Amino acid sequence: MKRKLINFNAGPAALPESVLNTIDQQIVNWQDMGLSILELGHRTLEFSALAEKLEASVRRILKVPDDFTILMLPGGANVLFSMLVMNLIGDFKTANYINTGYWSKAAIKEALKYTDVHIAASSEEQGYNTIPDIDTWDITKDAAFLHFTDNETIGGVEFSQIPAIENMVLVSDMTSSLFSKPIDFKRIGCIYASAQKNFGIAGMSLVIVRRDLLDRALPETPSVFHFANQDKSKSLLATPPTFAFYVASLVLDWIEEEGGVESMAERNLEKSTILYHFLDKSNLYHNPIDKKHRSRMNIPFTMDSSKESAFFNEAKKMGLLYLEGHRSIGGARASIYNAISTEQVNRLVDFLQYFETHY
Amino acid sequence: MKRKLINFNAGPAALPESVLNTIDQQIVNWQDMGLSILELGHRTLEFSALAEKLEASVRRILKVPDDFTILMLPGGANVLFSMLVMNLIGDFKTANYINTGYWSKAAIKEALKYTDVHIAASSEEQGYNTIPDIDTWDITKDAAFLHFTDNETIGGVEFSQIPAIENMVLVSDMTSSLFSKPIDFKRIGCIYASAQKNFGIAGMSLVIVRRDLLDRALPETPSVFHFANQDKSKSLLATPPTFAFYVASLVLDWIEEEGGVESMAERNLEKSTILYHFLDKSNLYHNPIDKKHRSRMNIPFTMDSSKESAFFNEAKKMGLLYLEGHRSIGGARASIYNAISTEQVNRLVDFLQYFETHY
Repeated sequence: MKRKLINFNAGPAALPESVLNTIDQQIVNWQDMGLSILELGHRTLEFSALAEKLEASVRRILKVPDDFTILMLPGGANVLFSMLVMNLIGDFKTANYINTGYWSKAAIKEALKYTDVHIAASSEEQGYNTIPDIDTWDITKDAAFLHFTDNETIGGVEFSQIPAIENMVLVSDMTSSLFSKPIDFKRIGCIYASAQKNFGIAGMSLVIVRRDLLDRALPETPSVFHFANQDKSKSLLATPPTFAFYVASLVLDWIEEEGGVESMAERNLEKSTILYHFLDKSNLYHNPIDKKHRSRMNIPFTMDSSKESAFFNEAKKMGLLYLEGHRSIGGARASIYNAISTEQVNRLVDFLQYFETHY
Repeated sequence: MKRKLINFNAGPAALPESVLNTIDQQIVNWQDMGLSILELGHRTLEFSALAEKLEASVRRILKVPDDFTILMLPGGANVLFSMLVMNLIGDFKTANYINTGYWSKAAIKEALKYTDVHIAASSEEQGYNTIPDIDTWDITKDAAFLHFTDNETIGGVEFSQIPAIENMVLVSDMTSSLFSKPIDFKRIGCIYASAQKNFGIAGMSLVIVRRDLLDRALPETPSVFHFANQDKSKSLLATPPTFAFYVASLVLDWIEEEGGVESMAERNLEKSTILYHFLDKSNLYHNPIDKKHRSRMNIPFTMDSSKESAFFNEAKKMGLLYLEGHRSIGGARASIYNAISTEQVNRLVDFLQYFETHY
């Protein structure tokens, strides 16, 4: 099955075609067990092996050091906005947050339920079209951690690297960038991500956290989201989202077959460069983001609003789906995660050119 | 595809064969969209329609009154052990819990993180082989609610009906019994259940809660699990476990095709009666549960422990899988949820008879 449609949705997002084909082949009879993975108990040997394989894949692909634990939890980043604070605030009275857009703000709003928040930097006055220079950050030292949103899925800004900050635990929402590039764990205390962008389907998330931070959880942290307890239970403290584990394991196999996150990073840079290059020379489309901080994953762009309706209609006719921008800001957006190929980005550029010329 | 194996797992559990076949047919191309349901955005019209259909199915099948809202949340009952308390404790200082086994205790342990707990009744001294008579319950009236575990998946006791208690909000973990029988909502304030027993796969849960209880949430309740917020957002406050929604909608379609929960209740009574009748006349097997309170869903039984290893091996050879009891109590257990047919229970009985005669 060769698919003609291209799914530019921000998430749940396109899966690699080979992964979908594998699921299609295995869905009613997994590993010749005569059972579906959908109905396999999480305490079976076969599922335990799958969970261990998934954890090992994450560790190998991202080169996660031994002093970090890898947790696979139900729900997504929205749940972790609260749970990361309950797990990591300890006896501290505040935490630093960098506000770079919609998802930063959502994380801050949730954090305020459990702690004071110190906004160490914000690009709100710039309409979130940049990331404040690290030299200008006003970091409170006596804080549990500093949180940043590695990639803003809606606004389209991305940290080009993990900030180098001494003597501070860095926590990052990497929902829309995890597995799209290598990670320097020397700079990191904890990262987390929903699966439905770059490594699977909605309903699970990954947390990778330095083990020395596991003793900070508030007593009222719910068991299923208690990092230290899930570490002891190898993420099987409660029934996990078993099928989401399976899909993630297939996507990670695909990433390795394709050359790992180093290869993904090269490809993602190439894809986004092609698209930005076109947008910047276009007279119709406009991407407002500071070039140093443009996302390689989510590329928002605007056009004369009177043309938008025709744009989305024509795009759909050409098989280019879900180019609508987020309901909070409108406009258009192309999400070009790992599973979107360079060829597919070129098809998008061809369409953008066609539409600009003819409409 | 006619399957020979029977999956007696306690959960994730067997799915109806027709549901698996539908998934198999639709997995890479849902509703002729040319996309997989696995990669469909949750803000698309198609997914919104699916979520609304699912909610309507739940309401129709269970005859949920209009003054109750139906929430579809990520994670399972273990998560709700904490979240139900955060949502429902309000200004009260305590909550009543009925302790009838492993899952009651787990719910109590989690509740203690947020409130005092009053154990209104317990069968711990009876080895959890019964449910204390309601006349003996010592209920604290000035309490947020009374919590009971409708069916103990491990111990194998089940409430034959919802207790009739005046002037008290009843909250019930129905993880392993929801959709197996009708529910009298006049007696209920809030019920919740994981999907992976009787209505889908692991990674989602249902909460059905009376609307007048929606104003009690603690300020620190995480947004994704904040009942009132999710009510306003129609369960789409954050990215939901989209594929689990889809599977649940298929299973509910199947339940309706089979005659609804009234029909399920008849069938479940028949199946469990067949199995208990055999166990009670057997000289090898033994079910220790008080006959008035035996579960129709999970039927634990013991045998001479020296025979267990041969028992599980022979069962597996015959295609009868996952009859092992829970690791906390050992022995054997047959979980016979909705998707297990009377014919399949008869096959189990035939095997039990064969094994008793020949080993």
